[in-house]
Amino acid sequence: MPSAALPATVRGVNSTPLGFFDSGVGGLTVVRAVQELMPAENILYLGDTARLPYGSKSPETIRQFADEDVRFLLTHGVKAVVVACNTASAHALPRLREHYRVPILGVIEAGVEDALADPKAERIGIIATRGTINSHAYQHALAQRRTGLIIHGQAAPLLVPLVEENWIEHPATRQILQVYLEPLVDKGIDTLMLACTHYPLLIPVLKTLLPPGVRLVDSATTCAQHLQRELTRLDLLAPADQTGTLELYLTDLSEQFEQLARQFLKKSPGRIRRAVLGG
Amino acid sequence: MPSAALPATVRGVNSTPLGFFDSGVGGLTVVRAVQELMPAENILYLGDTARLPYGSKSPETIRQFADEDVRFLLTHGVKAVVVACNTASAHALPRLREHYRVPILGVIEAGVEDALADPKAERIGIIATRGTINSHAYQHALAQRRTGLIIHGQAAPLLVPLVEENWIEHPATRQILQVYLEPLVDKGIDTLMLACTHYPLLIPVLKTLLPPGVRLVDSATTCAQHLQRELTRLDLLAPADQTGTLELYLTDLSEQFEQLARQFLKKSPGRIRRAVLGG
Repeated sequence: MPSAALPATVRGVNSTPLGFFDSGVGGLTVVRAVQELMPAENILYLGDTARLPYGSKSPETIRQFADEDVRFLLTHGVKAVVVACNTASAHALPRLREHYRVPILGVIEAGVEDALADPKAERIGIIATRGTINSHAYQHALAQRRTGLIIHGQAAPLLVPLVEENWIEHPATRQILQVYLEPLVDKGIDTLMLACTHYPLLIPVLKTLLPPGVRLVDSATTCAQHLQRELTRLDLLAPADQTGTLELYLTDLSEQFEQLARQFLKKSPGRIRRAVLGG
Repeated sequence: MPSAALPATVRGVNSTPLGFFDSGVGGLTVVRAVQELMPAENILYLGDTARLPYGSKSPETIRQFADEDVRFLLTHGVKAVVVACNTASAHALPRLREHYRVPILGVIEAGVEDALADPKAERIGIIATRGTINSHAYQHALAQRRTGLIIHGQAAPLLVPLVEENWIEHPATRQILQVYLEPLVDKGIDTLMLACTHYPLLIPVLKTLLPPGVRLVDSATTCAQHLQRELTRLDLLAPADQTGTLELYLTDLSEQFEQLARQFLKKSPGRIRRAVLGG
């Protein structure tokens, strides 16, 4: 099926969509950044809303789900896959790259590069789901690239539900954020990595809670830039005269997910289709 | 040996386990109540932790998951099925009863009966997941049984994550509970139904937040009593000389779920096995 769908010319291949997947609609923060940077790209997005969240589940289960997500994208003939989910990037990326020949990018490398773009970065805090923190993928990637870093990972499992419920402005959210941030602030972090695609929506609140001078690294923007460099290197950029489209698939449809999709994308997501994963 | 008089085949059927399923480990509050009331019963419990929560997902998806859960229990030869999940009871129970011949009980009827056991109950508040509230299953069951009731349903989607994170004692939980309870208290409820298997753990906090005299109805205990009546009626009670066992299956295993299972069950859950659902 995938090979039959691939057009013969290079222009044809470059016109095929970029495939994104996430446990839900949080990965649309990455899509939005990609659309801003590369408006010619066609995008096919899969959100596994029927089985979300991934962040609290075991590595084996996350790897199995990620595998099914990638297979769905490949049957739709994507030219590259972006794992727009920190938990899946943290647990599944190496294995996905072993199993599939299509270029597969995660959100971790981009975020780590951006965090270390500041040569003065020394004390780095990471907030993420429990799955991402426990994987030590960020901690490992940071430590590999610069010696002497002081790294503090903080699991923040209540932030995804709070964002999904749109309690962003609520005092309870501030209170919960304070509990998560306190140990990081106590350790004098100079950089805070938002290692979950839901967290960019919390940036305004985070800024009021962190001491001045703490740099926020948001993986959505950095991932888009990283993707652009990779597509350029692989000669896979879409033709510049093309107007990119967005096709959105979710494994469970509901009004709440549609509202959230609009919020993450900051515009209408258009028609949303239900995806049935092949298992 | 009181059950020695039973024919061998009946005794065999009665000794087979009761099957319970829930989206996660919250349904173990029901299991605990059943073990206290009917210690001879063998219990087989399935928690669909790989796909939890159900409460935020669409009716179609919940029905599909519930169907797969029941099939898993039936392949293990259970004598009856308890839908120990309010969301699944609310959306899937009628269809499950149509499809399968084994006795299938939900948590709603029992809770509604208990709420109305007080003849003075007039203003009934319900807190539950968004899925349960939106199904109107509780509201409908109450209204069918007594005319003139004033019923207020309040979706409380953040309570499950807060309980699962064990933030039960935290001020943020109190603050969030206040937001959910305020509209119910304003309407002068005399009864509050805890229509989610996670909520019994919140009873101590709830008691400090509600005006005196509001009666709490917790579906775990009532469901156990309802089940005992049904098993008696169907002549399906386990032989009294038997010591009941618990077999626990989860679709995703993790340390967090094991800890939670212990918390809900108030004792060690024993060995937990991983369930693979047939789809």
